[in-house]
Amino acid sequence: MGRILIKDIYLDGKQSDILIEGSRISRISDRIDNIYPDATVLDGRGKAVIPGFANMHTHAAMTMMRGSKEDEKLHKWLAGIWEMETRLDDELVYWGTKLACVEMIKTGTTFYNDQYFRVGEAVKATSEMGLRGAHSFVFLDCGDKEKMALQRENCQKAYEDSLKWGSTSIFEIGVHSIYTVSEENILWAFDFARKHNLKIHIHIAETSQELEECIEKYSCTPVQYLENLGIFSEDIIAAHCIWLDGNDIATLGMHRVNVVHNINSNLKLASGYKFKFQELEDAGANICLGTDGVASNNNLDMMETMKITALVQKAWRKDPSAVRLPQLISSATRNGYKAFGLDGGLIKEGALADLSIIDISNYAFTPNINFDANLVYSAHSDCISTVICDGRIVMEDRQIAGEEEILTNVRRLYGRILGQTI
Amino acid sequence: MGRILIKDIYLDGKQSDILIEGSRISRISDRIDNIYPDATVLDGRGKAVIPGFANMHTHAAMTMMRGSKEDEKLHKWLAGIWEMETRLDDELVYWGTKLACVEMIKTGTTFYNDQYFRVGEAVKATSEMGLRGAHSFVFLDCGDKEKMALQRENCQKAYEDSLKWGSTSIFEIGVHSIYTVSEENILWAFDFARKHNLKIHIHIAETSQELEECIEKYSCTPVQYLENLGIFSEDIIAAHCIWLDGNDIATLGMHRVNVVHNINSNLKLASGYKFKFQELEDAGANICLGTDGVASNNNLDMMETMKITALVQKAWRKDPSAVRLPQLISSATRNGYKAFGLDGGLIKEGALADLSIIDISNYAFTPNINFDANLVYSAHSDCISTVICDGRIVMEDRQIAGEEEILTNVRRLYGRILGQTI
Repeated sequence: MGRILIKDIYLDGKQSDILIEGSRISRISDRIDNIYPDATVLDGRGKAVIPGFANMHTHAAMTMMRGSKEDEKLHKWLAGIWEMETRLDDELVYWGTKLACVEMIKTGTTFYNDQYFRVGEAVKATSEMGLRGAHSFVFLDCGDKEKMALQRENCQKAYEDSLKWGSTSIFEIGVHSIYTVSEENILWAFDFARKHNLKIHIHIAETSQELEECIEKYSCTPVQYLENLGIFSEDIIAAHCIWLDGNDIATLGMHRVNVVHNINSNLKLASGYKFKFQELEDAGANICLGTDGVASNNNLDMMETMKITALVQKAWRKDPSAVRLPQLISSATRNGYKAFGLDGGLIKEGALADLSIIDISNYAFTPNINFDANLVYSAHSDCISTVICDGRIVMEDRQIAGEEEILTNVRRLYGRILGQTI
Repeated sequence: MGRILIKDIYLDGKQSDILIEGSRISRISDRIDNIYPDATVLDGRGKAVIPGFANMHTHAAMTMMRGSKEDEKLHKWLAGIWEMETRLDDELVYWGTKLACVEMIKTGTTFYNDQYFRVGEAVKATSEMGLRGAHSFVFLDCGDKEKMALQRENCQKAYEDSLKWGSTSIFEIGVHSIYTVSEENILWAFDFARKHNLKIHIHIAETSQELEECIEKYSCTPVQYLENLGIFSEDIIAAHCIWLDGNDIATLGMHRVNVVHNINSNLKLASGYKFKFQELEDAGANICLGTDGVASNNNLDMMETMKITALVQKAWRKDPSAVRLPQLISSATRNGYKAFGLDGGLIKEGALADLSIIDISNYAFTPNINFDANLVYSAHSDCISTVICDGRIVMEDRQIAGEEEILTNVRRLYGRILGQTI
């Protein structure tokens, strides 16, 4: 069993020692003597420990498209993305996901919830990088009967493959959205998930267009359409949920749905920004944060996401006290783990050892009157020096094994997704 | 005359050499041979050069208060800030400004526009750090006759002192706002500024309360009130300008006023966010960006400010094409220099040598399909490795001379501004 002993680190306003054994935090105390000759000892002086971030909605391999579509109106942007995606292959997904993992590790994310094509490549890349990931098999058929049957078949196969995955990779069902997946397959997918005890990752009510089309077609909101299909439970991870009415909020709350807010993407694509953070939480939903894919963000930085989430909530509500710091930090950490039934994203004995060691000897934490405020509003992710996931060091002093090879491969490959001859 | 030769650096899509002589960029070419034995040669491989950022509205020494007031309603927040400011002294302003300079240098700002008390200390701190600064003598009397007379006297003295300042420090007149400065002193200050050819730095239309009170008192908007006093010209640097009507926009445009947008502060204090970026620019105003003070942001990072500015503009306008990248970058760089009649904030022969060398060998710039998009939306300020201001290196490989001493002094002093016995 691997052991890591972090000595003399700032936690909750005082200096502590933290012992990690196997994949969990086994002890936190004023002083823990190193009685294990094999333990890796990390010096925590001038540093603090924070929980790993849980990025609860992204499309990792889209890092390959970083900066390819800028300042474009939504339909042109989307058409451009879809056109690029016709050229996806295993190699692009594998190296794109690896680049995403580099970025997530550098910015302190230890667990992420992915929805993209060629899930086997994403899992391989993520496990090799040492990150914890939930990977969706994606349903997206646009009503095409042939596709519908093929996807059910492939889902079954992907599920069987997933039984061989390691303990840090979670298989789940991705239902792209109600406007891209046939009702028949939505029902099939939910049934399959229920039978195999899998989570479901779905986009809901992202744009006003989705809302309007749903009302026109079904005479109800997207949330009510899915409620009528009987699919809501705490096994649902619902991304976006920007366009909700009071009834939708009550529905999502009642079923304890995990709702993922992706502020940067919602702002950049002008999808809407009046996310009902407090109302949903009050109703009983579990609020998580996500970055969405790089094509609409353009990074995977959860620290930046926390800051922008809080600033925008304060602004549109005209209330500087909206979204308080502890609530905000929970939504970026433990709530994401909770969505998948994992005891992680927090620093306590017994929790998963998914955490970051951050440098607080710099200007961003000076003065250190309010640590949480400095973390969210002042600092950037470059304060993150060492990242531990599942009890293993995945970055030390900002060095990640294999980083240069990953960047080199992305530079070699990205022209292919743009349709350039390379 | 000092010389710096930057070899083989990425600029406008290709590799260039850049020669700096004295305080200016003297040559940009595919290849410049080093014929100067005294030149400092910097290796630009894997790096790009970008203009220095111009932070056109801040209160530098407020770094001392970082994180002291969080998640508070506006009136409570403001009362807390003012209470702290009663304890200001020279030492607090000096070291607070030094910390601000460390932060600005680390995030690539080479020129900033300050409005705070004890201007002599701020200038001393800023010149020692090698940054270019515009420093306001602040009028703020709340109608107190004694204060009014004293401030006029002190302004005269401060102006005389400023004649001994070095070439990188600019003296200007700060008029806090129309609700904190008597009309008599507003007029005196503007007259003084005109006589001595000084710029004026003023908060205008920051909150809806300011607008409503102005309408109640003067039956017109803050902009029209000042227009009636005859004060607008291109010598005005007007911070915020959130609450404007069409007439106000036309007035600010007609006089080519420099308007500074401070998105983070406006969001965090819930002052309003529907800044009329495009309308003001179309009308003829010079749009600049600022961070405002650390007490309402909580950092001085212009890269973060660019991203959030653009995201919020796209969102509230429901237009993903709003604020295009070149326009955004100009507002954070050259437009600020232009406000003070300086030929800087851009990379061209003859311009002031205020620039940064940034690392583009990292994930944030991979792939490098769109450099500007990567700079604004993907990267953070930790990509900035070397900063040159007025032809001198103020940071090299993220090392700033004296940084540790500054952090130590801030840690020693900040309790004093909180009213703690230290």
